[in-house]
Amino acid sequence: MSGTSDTLFALAAGSTQTAAIEGISAAGADPTLMAHTPSADAELLAYGRTARAPVVPVSPTGCPTPAVVTRAVRERLGFETVVLDAGLAEPTGAPTIDLGAARGGDVRDSEPVPDAAEIFETARTLGSDLPADRLVVAETVPGGTTTAMGVLAALGERRAVSSSLPENPLELKREVVDAGLAASDLDAGDLAGEPTEAVRRMGDPVLAAVSGLAAGALDADADVTLAGGTQLATAGALVRHAGVEDGLELATTSFVAGDDSARIRDLAADQSLDLTVTDPGFEARDSHPAMAAYLAGEAKEGVGMGGALALAAEADLGMDAVRESIVEVYDRVTDPVEEPA
Amino acid sequence: MSGTSDTLFALAAGSTQTAAIEGISAAGADPTLMAHTPSADAELLAYGRTARAPVVPVSPTGCPTPAVVTRAVRERLGFETVVLDAGLAEPTGAPTIDLGAARGGDVRDSEPVPDAAEIFETARTLGSDLPADRLVVAETVPGGTTTAMGVLAALGERRAVSSSLPENPLELKREVVDAGLAASDLDAGDLAGEPTEAVRRMGDPVLAAVSGLAAGALDADADVTLAGGTQLATAGALVRHAGVEDGLELATTSFVAGDDSARIRDLAADQSLDLTVTDPGFEARDSHPAMAAYLAGEAKEGVGMGGALALAAEADLGMDAVRESIVEVYDRVTDPVEEPA
Repeated sequence: MSGTSDTLFALAAGSTQTAAIEGISAAGADPTLMAHTPSADAELLAYGRTARAPVVPVSPTGCPTPAVVTRAVRERLGFETVVLDAGLAEPTGAPTIDLGAARGGDVRDSEPVPDAAEIFETARTLGSDLPADRLVVAETVPGGTTTAMGVLAALGERRAVSSSLPENPLELKREVVDAGLAASDLDAGDLAGEPTEAVRRMGDPVLAAVSGLAAGALDADADVTLAGGTQLATAGALVRHAGVEDGLELATTSFVAGDDSARIRDLAADQSLDLTVTDPGFEARDSHPAMAAYLAGEAKEGVGMGGALALAAEADLGMDAVRESIVEVYDRVTDPVEEPA
Repeated sequence: MSGTSDTLFALAAGSTQTAAIEGISAAGADPTLMAHTPSADAELLAYGRTARAPVVPVSPTGCPTPAVVTRAVRERLGFETVVLDAGLAEPTGAPTIDLGAARGGDVRDSEPVPDAAEIFETARTLGSDLPADRLVVAETVPGGTTTAMGVLAALGERRAVSSSLPENPLELKREVVDAGLAASDLDAGDLAGEPTEAVRRMGDPVLAAVSGLAAGALDADADVTLAGGTQLATAGALVRHAGVEDGLELATTSFVAGDDSARIRDLAADQSLDLTVTDPGFEARDSHPAMAAYLAGEAKEGVGMGGALALAAEADLGMDAVRESIVEVYDRVTDPVEEPA
């Protein structure tokens, strides 16, 4: 642990009504439990196991949350983390910085994030105050690729997004976004240059938080890594539409990069984001259920997984060590036996 | 960093109107800045410097907050920390777990902590949920020894408390507590066996939080260290009056142990607390302003300083290394030049 936080990993966690649309998200096996996913992810990042949250998030087929991977890297590298409450629906036992954000509404309504501008400004101030030479910005919000697509549409950007499902339900997302544009009385591109308006009418509170954080850290001349896939690329677009032109890294996983529907290279190029893609080499342990699920196209990214892997690669922590740590964390968090206190 | 949190250091931070009574507290050079002290302490513990708080807490004579010492030990040992919002009056940039506590009132009123029972129960549940084999429980609340005296009186316990001032304003505290008992229509001992009532009518929200945390961690069979002086001894009394008889450690500094007015050995014995006293050996660097101030009787304890020193001693981290780290943290946090981001 260093004296000051050279690298600080900030996770914005929130929820929306958009996630409740049937077929949108894999973040949580059971819709009634999905609302707990961001709260549980925050606990896994902070503690390496759950605390208040009743479940460890797994997909319907048993794929564990990418929080397991991010935590596994953290246990080797020891970087400091903070969690931002950007509209959590359920209590978390992880310490959080409160952004005063309410849970997001349904993107098919006219104003799913009424407080988008306030969240962005609060996060921007915080981003410039947080002690970090380098801020790594991550998200956990079920249904987040759909709201990201909504924001990209409002901004007039390329509407490519990834999915936590092996088969990206792109048609469904497009229908939902089109319904949202209609409800908001918008045509694509109407909100170019108005990032917080785009979030207010088509986004989710976590997008306001991560883009605000990034903008604020850039204001303070910190290095910023957007840790994630198409949602963080959308955050990068929001930063650009706010008029911030500083260098910005986007660090994602090989699973997102390998998802043709995501078009992450094009999204990054559109916004002048320096793209880093890290492959954790899960093929080497393809019989492990967590790694097999990722190889089959599940989850792909989230909770800053791509950023954590990039930090591991930069620190010359071999991916064999990362995989070993993933197995340890997976075994710990999925152990059905209550651990003695 | 270990896989799970073997040792977790939990700081409950809050504020009261009691602290505004003239002459009660040294926690903050300027009364208008004192409300920021717990928020700043949380940031110092979490980051090793302030973030949102406008000041680094120093006493009127320039003695830095004991958060500097606790952080200095943390930078050597790397234990994990959580901050609980137990009634903060000002924003903090440190991540916090929200206990839903309001700022405490004035102990001279009839009901300074209306939500004492709810805070205690929320903290107790959290204490049993937090992942820790050993929970170290600390406080930061200006004016806290006065409210501790009030609770001790209500419980019918020995009314000895320490002070952050070299000359303990015991007469003033006794007058304030007597006024509080009268306003609450209580005689000493009337609330024996009713710990949350004692806090509700004579305490502060941080006492409800630290005693609840300790009780909950004991419920979950964790080891618990009350890290502090007479306020944490009072928390121990509250745990006992709640009927919890498990073993409990009280870890404080040699400065509290050397304060005859505090009678910490008697307080600990009254409640069957295993007392650990750690001397950081500040005489070896008595020309340093921070250490000279402690040697002159200022501050003495707070923000878990005694617990942090005990952890250092257990880990065989020599006190010379602790002192060296204190100088580093002190120089960093008191540097008037804005650090580059």
